Amino acid sequence: MAERSPWHPRAQTPREAGAAKPDGEDRLYGLNACRAVFAKRPQDVRKVWLAESRIPALQPVLAWCVKHRIGYRVVDGADLDRLTATRHHEGVCFDVRRREPSSLAALLAGLPPAPMPALLVVLDGVGNPHNFGALLRSAAHFGAAGVILPAGSGLGLSGAACRVAEGGAEALPLARAGADEDVPGRLREAGFQVAATVPRDGADLYAEPLPARLALVFGAEGEGMSEALIHAADLRLTIPGSGAVESLNIAASAAVLFAEWYRGRRR
Amino acid sequence: MAERSPWHPRAQTPREAGAAKPDGEDRLYGLNACRAVFAKRPQDVRKVWLAESRIPALQPVLAWCVKHRIGYRVVDGADLDRLTATRHHEGVCFDVRRREPSSLAALLAGLPPAPMPALLVVLDGVGNPHNFGALLRSAAHFGAAGVILPAGSGLGLSGAACRVAEGGAEALPLARAGADEDVPGRLREAGFQVAATVPRDGADLYAEPLPARLALVFGAEGEGMSEALIHAADLRLTIPGSGAVESLNIAASAAVLFAEWYRGRRR
Repeated sequence: MAERSPWHPRAQTPREAGAAKPDGEDRLYGLNACRAVFAKRPQDVRKVWLAESRIPALQPVLAWCVKHRIGYRVVDGADLDRLTATRHHEGVCFDVRRREPSSLAALLAGLPPAPMPALLVVLDGVGNPHNFGALLRSAAHFGAAGVILPAGSGLGLSGAACRVAEGGAEALPLARAGADEDVPGRLREAGFQVAATVPRDGADLYAEPLPARLALVFGAEGEGMSEALIHAADLRLTIPGSGAVESLNIAASAAVLFAEWYRGRRR
Repeated sequence: MAERSPWHPRAQTPREAGAAKPDGEDRLYGLNACRAVFAKRPQDVRKVWLAESRIPALQPVLAWCVKHRIGYRVVDGADLDRLTATRHHEGVCFDVRRREPSSLAALLAGLPPAPMPALLVVLDGVGNPHNFGALLRSAAHFGAAGVILPAGSGLGLSGAACRVAEGGAEALPLARAGADEDVPGRLREAGFQVAATVPRDGADLYAEPLPARLALVFGAEGEGMSEALIHAADLRLTIPGSGAVESLNIAASAAVLFAEWYRGRRR
């Protein structure tokens, strides 16, 4: 049995610890999600809970915790269920310092300059954390350079999104658009072509090669994206298909579009 | 308020109706999933429950129910939650006659003959109904000719899978492999090349055009597919990527592969 650290008095149960999660921290879970945080920014790990069965897989994390006096606890499955409010925790939960999205300007300043190829993902919605997480995983897989979140939205890196992203969230720079910021305009100034993805009546994805420096805009599931954004885009792209279903799932659409950009970069 | 049909005595609550779901029927939910069943095989609809807000969208279904003396009931959200055991019912639930998968031979007999292009999906696992449903939706979108389920597995069209498939399940012929059936061998006899999808060390998906008559094999999430199937395949395909995450989600992989087959068919 691993040593238990004394970050809380004995009287505090995991449920209370959950309720007391400080501002400025995120509660993450899932083995790959937690490992990715530890690999990328171990100094941001504040607390660790794990199932006994995870001790071998998380040995480097536990060694770090001991060395840096970070609290960790071996807990049972029911405690992890309560801490994470899900059964899909995969036996590990971290409280980590929240990674605040940067400004769009800061994200753009960190990119290779035009006309070098780069893929950005612009979200105008996407409410479901599983879709958001799946999109992040695919974006990381195909080497996207960053993700731009809508101004004033609550959309962020929830525990569910990070778990589903399987570590992809940590691989991607995140920015949040400012209120009233002209995102398409800023992207164009930085040498990007802005493409809105629409379920029908757009240009056939396979009709022309995709621009090497591409910002792909995705709307919310169901509602789609705002008309203003669709009209502000340089391209409106539709993934062709049989018509047997109305559309693809947003995460499937995103994977197909990212793959097509990636394929084009290697020609 | 819609007329309520008398298929059950008043004393039976929706919870009891749920418990009493007869063998040979599936309980489906989700607006597009239910509409797809009604469009494809209305004679298989046995019972209908709907929220009052869904009466306009389901008017043709209700007219059919009245004409054919199929029971339907307008119920509240809590009843639908209980009937479907989820909150993701979208205000509608059908009990429908189960569509049993055909034999592999029957599926193959119904396809356009070699060398005409056709895409088949072979599942060697895929346990998560959301992944299964997302895969079905993408397969329907890209015009797959059928889906082959593993022998002796419980994998089938659950309510969750059908909801996530958004009607795609109804568009796809389904077969179940027989115990000890040589699925790759049968597929080859029917003119298919069999491709296993592997997260690494396969041939680069984009290195060569995909065969026009292609059976794509997917393994279970996590475990992957059986070594025997990998070795029996004609091709082992890997979707290239940045390496920032270990792999793509299976539903995202499937969408990328189906899209690449579809793109190739239109060259």
